[in-house]
Amino acid sequence: MNETISTILNHRSIRDFKDKQLSDEQIKTIVSCAQAASTSSFIQAYSIIGIKDMEKKRKLAVLAGNQEYVAQNGHLFVFCADLNRHELIGEMEGKDVLASIESTEKFMVALIDAALAAQNAAIAAESMGLGICYIGGIRNNLEAVKELLKTPERVIPLFGMTVGYPERMNDLKPRLPLENVYHEEEYEQDKEIYLRQLQDYDGIISTYYEQRTNGKRKDRWTEQMAKMLEKQTRMYMKEFVQKNKMDLR
Amino acid sequence: MNETISTILNHRSIRDFKDKQLSDEQIKTIVSCAQAASTSSFIQAYSIIGIKDMEKKRKLAVLAGNQEYVAQNGHLFVFCADLNRHELIGEMEGKDVLASIESTEKFMVALIDAALAAQNAAIAAESMGLGICYIGGIRNNLEAVKELLKTPERVIPLFGMTVGYPERMNDLKPRLPLENVYHEEEYEQDKEIYLRQLQDYDGIISTYYEQRTNGKRKDRWTEQMAKMLEKQTRMYMKEFVQKNKMDLR
Repeated sequence: MNETISTILNHRSIRDFKDKQLSDEQIKTIVSCAQAASTSSFIQAYSIIGIKDMEKKRKLAVLAGNQEYVAQNGHLFVFCADLNRHELIGEMEGKDVLASIESTEKFMVALIDAALAAQNAAIAAESMGLGICYIGGIRNNLEAVKELLKTPERVIPLFGMTVGYPERMNDLKPRLPLENVYHEEEYEQDKEIYLRQLQDYDGIISTYYEQRTNGKRKDRWTEQMAKMLEKQTRMYMKEFVQKNKMDLR
Repeated sequence: MNETISTILNHRSIRDFKDKQLSDEQIKTIVSCAQAASTSSFIQAYSIIGIKDMEKKRKLAVLAGNQEYVAQNGHLFVFCADLNRHELIGEMEGKDVLASIESTEKFMVALIDAALAAQNAAIAAESMGLGICYIGGIRNNLEAVKELLKTPERVIPLFGMTVGYPERMNDLKPRLPLENVYHEEEYEQDKEIYLRQLQDYDGIISTYYEQRTNGKRKDRWTEQMAKMLEKQTRMYMKEFVQKNKMDLR
């Protein structure tokens, strides 16, 4: 196993950071790595906002559901889907690009582009001995996040990423059985096998929580997922996205 | 610069592979790396389909716009957003999860999850000396891809990824100026500066093409983008996604 693969397989989210800020050099390396990711037809449809200002970080921490580590870390990135740049390009070049950049297809492209860049940033940071955690919580209230970060139309803040020097490492969290996620030739259709895989995994996750919490918690994965998905959260998203002129047609 | 960062920064898409297949061991390592990526609230909302069958690869190559390297490579992965698993989980646990998994929010989660996993796979493969290329072309005709890969409702094939032993390395393609993509504290609003950055970049890209093609091609980036975006492509996507019960509410 090479060093990169070992870095990747050792990923765990870090939520407890030392009080030490990243250097501008480190930030630049991480952003350059983000930019090196593949991008659909070279479109580069994302932007990254870095937050150093403590007051702003605190506000984001509250918006993200009072998650302290959104403020206390070495640096906070916010990754955004960005087709605003391409509206400007249309103006520069005198071409009508609006139908295209307002399509569901380009919304998907921008999301995927931003995520590919973010994961490069994550791996780069981890390879430097730093820890990271994605912050989906900023999607709790994108209207307020948008105002705070002054993002224009056609830009959607997707998630934050805290980076910093780990204070404490969590255990590795076991993933779904490989055969449940990876199929050959076609999507697996045998429901019985599929269900059995999920039940086996439930046992693994239940044991994982039990061991970490001294028996206080032992939820199964499917139980956890069903509880989470039963709640309808962030149902304003469609309206927000479309108000920002994405995913319209 | 550590080995991982150097792998990341050396990324270029490979479209010309030696006639040598990946071993099952290599495929397993790549998929395990994909699975190690962060996932929103542990939801793991994606699946990966691996294609070895040459006839199926050829069909996909035609569907993706007659791109020969979609067939000629060491292995072909197709990454899918997958909330079908979570419909099943709702049934298993007797909870109504449908409104949730049909929301724009969860559509975004599934896309981001799949892309994070894919980028881990890409970096892992490249660290093993393999080359990769993302294949957005499968979105040219998802109805046919869906039929070929037998994906059910609530599963959207997003992109392919060819992996293999590089026959020939392309040059590194210069990305947007870092300052155009990365802003501190808030999204950059000075249009003049922004435009100047894009113009500078146009010069870099024009020179890049000129040198690679002995002067035959020298398109600027904004020119290339405007031309591409002027064409309305894959405008069926919204209907396809919603027919597959995602991004509905």
